[in-house]
Amino acid sequence: MPEFRKDPTVDRWVIIATERAKRPVHREASDTALCPFCAGNESLTPPEVLVFRDQSDPSGLPNWTVRVVPNKYPALVPDGSRLETTSENYEARSGTGAHEVIIESPHHVTDVTLLSESQFGAVLRAYRNRIMELRTDKRFRYILIYKNQGSEAGATLEHVHSQLIAMPMIPKLILEEIETAKNYYQANRRCVFCDLIRKETGGERFVTGNARYLVICPFAPRFPYETWILPKQHASLFERSTQQDDVDLARILRETLIRLNRSLGNPAFNYFIHSNPLDQGENNTYHWHMEIIPKLIQVGGFEWGSGSYINTVTPEQSARSLRAAIP
Amino acid sequence: MPEFRKDPTVDRWVIIATERAKRPVHREASDTALCPFCAGNESLTPPEVLVFRDQSDPSGLPNWTVRVVPNKYPALVPDGSRLETTSENYEARSGTGAHEVIIESPHHVTDVTLLSESQFGAVLRAYRNRIMELRTDKRFRYILIYKNQGSEAGATLEHVHSQLIAMPMIPKLILEEIETAKNYYQANRRCVFCDLIRKETGGERFVTGNARYLVICPFAPRFPYETWILPKQHASLFERSTQQDDVDLARILRETLIRLNRSLGNPAFNYFIHSNPLDQGENNTYHWHMEIIPKLIQVGGFEWGSGSYINTVTPEQSARSLRAAIP
Repeated sequence: MPEFRKDPTVDRWVIIATERAKRPVHREASDTALCPFCAGNESLTPPEVLVFRDQSDPSGLPNWTVRVVPNKYPALVPDGSRLETTSENYEARSGTGAHEVIIESPHHVTDVTLLSESQFGAVLRAYRNRIMELRTDKRFRYILIYKNQGSEAGATLEHVHSQLIAMPMIPKLILEEIETAKNYYQANRRCVFCDLIRKETGGERFVTGNARYLVICPFAPRFPYETWILPKQHASLFERSTQQDDVDLARILRETLIRLNRSLGNPAFNYFIHSNPLDQGENNTYHWHMEIIPKLIQVGGFEWGSGSYINTVTPEQSARSLRAAIP
Repeated sequence: MPEFRKDPTVDRWVIIATERAKRPVHREASDTALCPFCAGNESLTPPEVLVFRDQSDPSGLPNWTVRVVPNKYPALVPDGSRLETTSENYEARSGTGAHEVIIESPHHVTDVTLLSESQFGAVLRAYRNRIMELRTDKRFRYILIYKNQGSEAGATLEHVHSQLIAMPMIPKLILEEIETAKNYYQANRRCVFCDLIRKETGGERFVTGNARYLVICPFAPRFPYETWILPKQHASLFERSTQQDDVDLARILRETLIRLNRSLGNPAFNYFIHSNPLDQGENNTYHWHMEIIPKLIQVGGFEWGSGSYINTVTPEQSARSLRAAIP
């Protein structure tokens, strides 16, 4: 049974999930026959909680395009007891939550940019559908969508997939962003992200854009080639996006990942979506966005010890390279 | 010229240091002839700022045991201008600071546990000497000592060494620890670390100890086998330790690293020292300590996106294994 534990010296919650240590690692193409995410191997995963099927495909079963299943080796579990234990200065809570896997293709594709724009759109729709369903569970305060592609980026299975974790607390980094955005709004009566969008459009950190989204390398990136995608129109909640939003986001996300592939030679990468916590709804201060981090360096003692980062590539350099990498 | 930049959306400073991208990588034993840290190759580094020599060695030159030199590819530089630029919502400062390398042996040793206890003691003395000198420079507010061993832990040179970065601001993680410790003290009139020491001595997360130091796996570790070393007697500043403290710390640090090697098969690792900021001095609330992080996993999108961590090994398991790994 996983549990949350709070570090008494730094107010940081971690998830201790020993069952997850037992998950198998299938990183090689030779494992395809055993790949639990490939069509035909559905019995190797828990039963699906969402599936999209290709209605135009008369060929036979299984004709799914995107499948969402509970993680077989979850970091958090839905049926966690409500126990909270506090012993002297130690605080722990049962690891209640949801940990799901979004399987992005029935085929054994290992680089997401090989999927079509419409498949990207279906994946985004799956993200939204799952969030809309899970947010009705009042135990959850935050849902993080994230993707690890490549073993250097933390993936243990190579078949294209992303993950979702619903949890009963708001993560530290989200709390910090919300606080900063609130302070900025109080000082300026404007959303800090909206101001960034105005400032960065067409500037030296601009990468690309379309009607609804802007792609930039942020001013103070933690990592080389860190890249953000922001909706141009103010919106706090990713899951309230429309199907038309999805079309534009699918296109620009795919394009951005292709630019990163061309600039950097198909790096391992992570992306994640930052959206307002479930109990906050739409407001003037917080603006959802997506952050993409190619895995190019090993993080070291300076970063782990300080919480600060040394980045040897300016975002202006990264953006120039990404602008030149035309898909 | 490196610079600090502040992320306007999350109040986090990063260091942008493009010169550092040019540093060469010598990870292989075959590079020994070119290793800038080996005795005989002193001309490959900037002139030393501190050197310890073995007085009992009549054999010849160079007879140094520990050498401290400025980092040839520094993240921060001492002669940074005092410029601060703030443009609309972007804040940047020149990258003023010091970035030094502590070369821990004249020989091409790649695993620090092969050094003697007295050599460990000399390294700790070098740390203290450099901090005592640099703290007289009133531009600096914090000095972080850290070590990366192994390329997976971020090392680009394999010859045993650690690093020191002096900077004009207090890192985020230190500010958070100080704040937490202060709140704890105000509520309990006791140091949170002193309370941990009382609670953990001989308990299920206890690893080892001697007269002056305690080694534990912390209650809510970010990583498997994360291990802390704390002085048993309350002290805020590492650099105020005495030479007798060094003897005990050298012994227990070496022993702990050997235990990690035996438990985990010589993992890459980081360690760093958390000490009170330079302008704070000794106080009742903050307690210096050392954190050791073996590099066993790849950090993924959940961690980068949340600031939280999923750890598949309990500290009780880690401590049991480390207790059993008798040097």
